[in-house]
Amino acid sequence: MQHLKPCQGLSQLFLIRSQSSRISKGIIPLLSVWDRHLSSRWRSSGGHGGQKFFNNNGQKFRFALAGLLAGTGAVLAYKLHQSKVQWAASSVQLPVTSAPPVYTLEEVTKHRSLDNGVWVTYKGEVYDITEFVSMHPGGDKILLAAGGALEPYWALYAVHKEEHVLEILSEYKIGVLNPESLKRQESTDPLDPYSGEPNRHPALQINSLKPFNAEPPASVLADSYITPSAIFFKRNHLPVPKVDPETYRLEIEGLPSGVVSVTLSELKSCFPKRTITATLQCAGNRRSEMNKVKQVKGLNWGIAAISNATWSGASLRDVLIHYGFTPEVAINAKHVQFEGLDKDVTGTAYGASIPLNKAISEEGDVLLAYEMNGEDLPPDHGYPVRVVVPGVVGARNVKWLGRIVVSDEESKSHWQQNDYKGFSPGTDWDTVDFKSAPAIQELPIQSAVTHPAEGTSVERGDQEVTVKGYAWSGGGREVVRVDVSIDGGNAWHVAKLRSSDLEQNPAPGRAWAWKLWEIDVPLPDAAKELEIVCKAVDNSYNTQPDTVAPIWNLRGVLSNAWHRVKVKVKDDLKDQI
Amino acid sequence: MQHLKPCQGLSQLFLIRSQSSRISKGIIPLLSVWDRHLSSRWRSSGGHGGQKFFNNNGQKFRFALAGLLAGTGAVLAYKLHQSKVQWAASSVQLPVTSAPPVYTLEEVTKHRSLDNGVWVTYKGEVYDITEFVSMHPGGDKILLAAGGALEPYWALYAVHKEEHVLEILSEYKIGVLNPESLKRQESTDPLDPYSGEPNRHPALQINSLKPFNAEPPASVLADSYITPSAIFFKRNHLPVPKVDPETYRLEIEGLPSGVVSVTLSELKSCFPKRTITATLQCAGNRRSEMNKVKQVKGLNWGIAAISNATWSGASLRDVLIHYGFTPEVAINAKHVQFEGLDKDVTGTAYGASIPLNKAISEEGDVLLAYEMNGEDLPPDHGYPVRVVVPGVVGARNVKWLGRIVVSDEESKSHWQQNDYKGFSPGTDWDTVDFKSAPAIQELPIQSAVTHPAEGTSVERGDQEVTVKGYAWSGGGREVVRVDVSIDGGNAWHVAKLRSSDLEQNPAPGRAWAWKLWEIDVPLPDAAKELEIVCKAVDNSYNTQPDTVAPIWNLRGVLSNAWHRVKVKVKDDLKDQI
Repeated sequence: MQHLKPCQGLSQLFLIRSQSSRISKGIIPLLSVWDRHLSSRWRSSGGHGGQKFFNNNGQKFRFALAGLLAGTGAVLAYKLHQSKVQWAASSVQLPVTSAPPVYTLEEVTKHRSLDNGVWVTYKGEVYDITEFVSMHPGGDKILLAAGGALEPYWALYAVHKEEHVLEILSEYKIGVLNPESLKRQESTDPLDPYSGEPNRHPALQINSLKPFNAEPPASVLADSYITPSAIFFKRNHLPVPKVDPETYRLEIEGLPSGVVSVTLSELKSCFPKRTITATLQCAGNRRSEMNKVKQVKGLNWGIAAISNATWSGASLRDVLIHYGFTPEVAINAKHVQFEGLDKDVTGTAYGASIPLNKAISEEGDVLLAYEMNGEDLPPDHGYPVRVVVPGVVGARNVKWLGRIVVSDEESKSHWQQNDYKGFSPGTDWDTVDFKSAPAIQELPIQSAVTHPAEGTSVERGDQEVTVKGYAWSGGGREVVRVDVSIDGGNAWHVAKLRSSDLEQNPAPGRAWAWKLWEIDVPLPDAAKELEIVCKAVDNSYNTQPDTVAPIWNLRGVLSNAWHRVKVKVKDDLKDQI
Repeated sequence: MQHLKPCQGLSQLFLIRSQSSRISKGIIPLLSVWDRHLSSRWRSSGGHGGQKFFNNNGQKFRFALAGLLAGTGAVLAYKLHQSKVQWAASSVQLPVTSAPPVYTLEEVTKHRSLDNGVWVTYKGEVYDITEFVSMHPGGDKILLAAGGALEPYWALYAVHKEEHVLEILSEYKIGVLNPESLKRQESTDPLDPYSGEPNRHPALQINSLKPFNAEPPASVLADSYITPSAIFFKRNHLPVPKVDPETYRLEIEGLPSGVVSVTLSELKSCFPKRTITATLQCAGNRRSEMNKVKQVKGLNWGIAAISNATWSGASLRDVLIHYGFTPEVAINAKHVQFEGLDKDVTGTAYGASIPLNKAISEEGDVLLAYEMNGEDLPPDHGYPVRVVVPGVVGARNVKWLGRIVVSDEESKSHWQQNDYKGFSPGTDWDTVDFKSAPAIQELPIQSAVTHPAEGTSVERGDQEVTVKGYAWSGGGREVVRVDVSIDGGNAWHVAKLRSSDLEQNPAPGRAWAWKLWEIDVPLPDAAKELEIVCKAVDNSYNTQPDTVAPIWNLRGVLSNAWHRVKVKVKDDLKDQI
């Protein structure tokens, strides 16, 4: 398993582009945009070198650019190849013809729209980024910074703080702030919104620090049916909010009784405490395998963006009915929206929604959970209250829950409308229409090998190889079989499934927890290498697709092809002597 | 598409075995059993030739044997290779040493168990088949004939009436009936239980005549969103019963009120008439593709054992609640069993069951249907009442419904316990444990190409090829996308989906009807052959596996790999001149 950190991922992207013709269709348009943009700027400004650089068809000055969308659609990382960096460095040595214009903060603030121009400041310098807005791979979220300082946004999405991003920015410089404006601005500099993040377990493999996204080492994942909270995969979209349990209020809207405000102690005392064991999985779990086919946008998750825990709390059904839900409400309302208390600098909260029938069904088992594995929710998992929507993609299990809205519409949030959807392998960033695909809710059948690890070896003298892993399916569909092959998918063996005693006979459609599995497969006499493969089957007899490429999609979600692990068969020492 | 009739299928089996090393693991054990059986019989009876024949390792005397299980576990067809036939023919010319013993019917009747021996009669001859019982590929259903005549059973399962079956039987001959017994037996010969079958549409492609199993031509399947009842695929397990609507009674058991008996007019007048559009699919749809990988047991269905109709009737939920179902019943009861009025010669009815939560859920939409496409149910589809369990395999949609039992147990019927289950490709008839797999209920995502047909050609001058097909998923999961490739699965195009106006926005989890789809794909300039492939995605983002072999199973059910159709690209006449 590879757990590439962002920079490694980007280096790898460059290597892929240099070495192979399998260039990301998702990246090409962005590259072209940059080509056009930079080329024209240098031509119009009379700069030399730009023409030569950009007409060279990438032979000498290839660069790679990737959007690393860490959640809000505005978190981006750019990686320029070294030659580009060198070129940019030389370009700043061009003769300066005059002193830069000086602006006041008031003048900057007037430029907050495409019509009036989009100006921003960074460290006392003023930039007109109007032309860049349409090229921002993160979309028009960039407009949120219009007329003010970039610092708070870049604090939120720390991945912008890269040298090459500054280089790009430098091209838009139009002047500087006057000293008085700069002083005023600095005095209001916000604290790093991530300064209050909780401590995390050092074993976690971090995919993004701000916001925090990390997974446990795959090797330990299947060692415990219940994943300890400390190493349960963490997928935050924004800074972890600090919530005071005493002043916490959960607002509920959209019921005939109007807006309701519920305290934490009411939630705990007025409703029966219900407990379920449920596996949560990120839509991007195993994205790294899609990246190997062709670069996608998103965090480069390995196979461990999935974990299993017990969750306790009030039933969402109980709560909604208590506060006035009746079948008549369902005549118009079709969705239940959730809003987190985690917000970006504009005050926009994380949000998602689920179908009303899942929320209100007795068999849906949706919880307003305040406990994880028998203790208060940890800060990273939504303290004091989160939604647990078992069988449904992690993204709808909204943490730090602040508001519930019963509505005729899905959540309007970015993550519901323009993210977390699946597309055909033939759909690229030029052709994608997010309206054409449904928001991911139930996830498909999934499994992976957690032992042995890729690239390790087994002893021929052991005569057999022990293979372990996990398997899970969305929608409460129980995993009924895991097939394992050690010859790449030719001969198949049936693994032994393991679940807790409690979860052994789940009610139909309510198998929320994964199964761990294990099998000892005899080693073939002559084999020098094994290609270990697993595939699971759920009780709707859905099974995993054979290969990654035909399910590849531009966001790298829903990666559930057969998991493949190659290991060497090592001859025993005595045989080698 | 190949729609092989049983005999064609068996001939093909022989060819496969002769030409290829991909020999059915499911067949080998049966062959071995037969080897041992025949070999030992001939050795012990002093016959010559047998030793020579069976020690020849199959080089000269290979034969193929297949069980064609047409539904009850007792429908079998054996195909012996011509050389075996020749050998068998010559073997009956061995010197007969004495006149055959003569038995009375009373003596035969005493031999009805493995302890006392299992005797049967056929056309006045008496056979001791005790040794054969354990080898009967259809299991111990054969014991139903013990102590009596085979004729009624073979009338029921007409596929036994093959020369090679008679040859096998002849080896067990121990004597003849005395004339008086024969006369008595003949006078009670039952009528052909299939003599009252309804007329069928001549377009149907028949896979088995008795019981009747047939599918529409694939080419017309996607021409109509609603499949006309006459060509809706037909899958009967037993003779079609004649039911008088006046005397028809539906019995309901397992509710606190005791046994209830409901008339047809009560069913129609006491409960609201509900209508749904639902696709039914046989678990064996597309089995012919599995047969190409390795021989399986079962009818050789093409891609058209699936059809779509509107169904009207009383809601099962309404009926159960009306007759006393309360949530307390669900504390113990977990299943709802259905029994048909179609029975075998022993009086055993067709039976199946579904989970109680599907039966009782408002969103389960299970109907006691008395209308199909706006008219009384046709005899082949369960007149006067059938169960329609939308989203669930055809086999649970019991026709000619006679009894409903609310129970803590699944149906004990053969079809629930020892049939219609999925297994790993590595599981063969020696290792299969039917208890280890769940009865198929919800079916997985499915799609197929209905146009163009395999082996046809398209004109290069047309510049594009129009591809059409169907897509459907079980469990009420809506098909949200169909990807089509004309280069074997390399490049993918998104097809346009079509459903009726009514079905365009099904409630979540209640998408019971298929989608038809269509796409025009540009022809690549140089292509001489196209490999057209389709795969569908449902709203749980489950998708179809790439290939057949890894989902192969000994009963050939759940065949839902990508559907592949090869067509030639024909140069236009003017280009050829």
